[in-house]
Amino acid sequence: MLVKDHRKRVLEHAEKIGCSTVVSFNPEDTFYLTGFWGESVGICSRDSTKIITPALETNRAEEVALSCEVISAERGKGMLLRVIDELAGKSVCTDSTDFHTIKMMAEKLGEKNVKVNNKPFTMSRIIKDLDEQENISKAAKIIDCLFNLSSEQIRKNKKEIELLALLVSETYILGGTLVSYKSTRFPFIIAGGPNAAFPHSEITTRPFSTGDTVIVDLVVQYEGYVADATRTFVIGHATDEIKQAYECVKDAQQTGLDSLRSAADFGNVDLACRNLVIDRGYGSKFIHSTGHGIGLEVHESPWISKTGKEKVMPGMCVTIEPGVYVNGRFGVRIEDSVIIKSANGKIDSPKIRNTISNLNSFPKDLICLS
Amino acid sequence: MLVKDHRKRVLEHAEKIGCSTVVSFNPEDTFYLTGFWGESVGICSRDSTKIITPALETNRAEEVALSCEVISAERGKGMLLRVIDELAGKSVCTDSTDFHTIKMMAEKLGEKNVKVNNKPFTMSRIIKDLDEQENISKAAKIIDCLFNLSSEQIRKNKKEIELLALLVSETYILGGTLVSYKSTRFPFIIAGGPNAAFPHSEITTRPFSTGDTVIVDLVVQYEGYVADATRTFVIGHATDEIKQAYECVKDAQQTGLDSLRSAADFGNVDLACRNLVIDRGYGSKFIHSTGHGIGLEVHESPWISKTGKEKVMPGMCVTIEPGVYVNGRFGVRIEDSVIIKSANGKIDSPKIRNTISNLNSFPKDLICLS
Repeated sequence: MLVKDHRKRVLEHAEKIGCSTVVSFNPEDTFYLTGFWGESVGICSRDSTKIITPALETNRAEEVALSCEVISAERGKGMLLRVIDELAGKSVCTDSTDFHTIKMMAEKLGEKNVKVNNKPFTMSRIIKDLDEQENISKAAKIIDCLFNLSSEQIRKNKKEIELLALLVSETYILGGTLVSYKSTRFPFIIAGGPNAAFPHSEITTRPFSTGDTVIVDLVVQYEGYVADATRTFVIGHATDEIKQAYECVKDAQQTGLDSLRSAADFGNVDLACRNLVIDRGYGSKFIHSTGHGIGLEVHESPWISKTGKEKVMPGMCVTIEPGVYVNGRFGVRIEDSVIIKSANGKIDSPKIRNTISNLNSFPKDLICLS
Repeated sequence: MLVKDHRKRVLEHAEKIGCSTVVSFNPEDTFYLTGFWGESVGICSRDSTKIITPALETNRAEEVALSCEVISAERGKGMLLRVIDELAGKSVCTDSTDFHTIKMMAEKLGEKNVKVNNKPFTMSRIIKDLDEQENISKAAKIIDCLFNLSSEQIRKNKKEIELLALLVSETYILGGTLVSYKSTRFPFIIAGGPNAAFPHSEITTRPFSTGDTVIVDLVVQYEGYVADATRTFVIGHATDEIKQAYECVKDAQQTGLDSLRSAADFGNVDLACRNLVIDRGYGSKFIHSTGHGIGLEVHESPWISKTGKEKVMPGMCVTIEPGVYVNGRFGVRIEDSVIIKSANGKIDSPKIRNTISNLNSFPKDLICLS
């Protein structure tokens, strides 16, 4: 892990907004700067990187963190005060958005010395170096194995929760880890029949049934880095209605992927994908954004939505995931994780700026399982 | 789920601090008020409960949420503005600690009308009703099954990650779900040999080896409610050093449990448990607090630490989890989830106020596995 490069990059962004020191409260940002994922605060400036951590994490931080000073402090308010001690006299930028943390930092360090701005982190993390791309690729390969297993296992009367139990176990066996974020209670989405019409369906004990579409949306982390991909299977025979929705989503997803090669910004990527869905008459049934950045978090910058302003740049890793949801009946979503790479003039069109490395190779043609 | 009682309780606490309306941004608090766990904001006052949610969650919220109005809004800033619209003219208390959210609420609603105070939620949630106790008990029973499985599966050369793969799968089969919180990357702690000396060890591919202590710390959620328990096994023969540390932790844990019956506050519970560890000469090796509340979160009020001020009250659910950690060599931790119940004069001593219902029945005597 190239923490040296990460630190340099984050500090360059911080210096542009007049800060000499960054303070990370988010575990992902601290991991990015130090290689340590745990209960801790990171402090990074040109001359040193420090981790402030409670006693129970100190020894682990000392073993894991790369070229850092590890400082032990009381948990809770004591830890914040210790962090503030370390920051005396510095101009600080922090990723914390916690009201109480910021208030105390401003009181003790002077309001003008504290910037609440996570941009140095998001702008650094948005471009993945080769090591990071490699980890995301490995996570995506694990997901492909899990799709393969899903296609073998999904059948009539099998329950969503049974498939989940198998997939989580296999994730760990394959070297991945699970990720969760606060507003979902399950690490994957496995949604059959009417459940597939909820984009964020919770996993149930419902058995799969003939005619179901089954959405399998998997998020796997490898060495801290996340890939995210989705396939939709059909049990038995696909009706014309399902086939039509499926083809729409498949074509929209390809259009979204293609647009990454030439679109100026991510708003245009969303538009390209969404317009195809609208043209086919499913506009009101595509009820979420087209995709998102992936990295240390499942959802991070860039955001691929109608209002996405971020430029499409080589080194970004994103997902493209259109879906069509027919409430009470069925849903279809297809998603890949991709790396955007520079075309480097290799393509003979001035409009094509990027090439796309699709990290998921599991087929996207409609698969009907018995 | 008795959301009616939850709402009543939260609003009573809010009214005591001059607020007629509570706004929940934390998924756990929204679940407590509505039965819906997802990407949403909850608004609750005497005359109505509302959920503001992005389009992709609207249909699911309508199906799941109990006696709520569900309002669809644009994700991100649009959602916050929609929430603020609903709050016009009200005196509001919120669990959000997000700097930007609070700033915008104060700007639009008037600073005096917005209280940043999660106490109405924490003070309501700290006392569990019988339904909640039942769910926590069920989660604890699943953990006991997993300890049983662990004792069958842990053996020389088996890897931490292999045991994890099995236990996560079994958790779902048994009707539980996994919980994670941001500063840990694995849902359970399984730590053998020197890894057991890190209280928050990450799971590795290290094979168990003769002479290891193996800490198995499991957190399982059932219908939203969490139990948390830990056992420590030994592979092969336990040395006198390990036996001594083990007996110390076991006795300290029993002392902690016993003290819940009579201690006035949780600071005294920590003290009772900690003093025994100190008396046995392991004080510097017990590097975390004695326990914590459990409920919709793994760690919630009351906090059982040196500075714990909360009174010990019937209806609280907590863990007692002392540990001894010898860096680079081994660790021991024992933890149960318990419900505190009123003694109701059934015990003939004025000092005994409470009885304890221990939710974990897996043995705590030292188990050596081959």
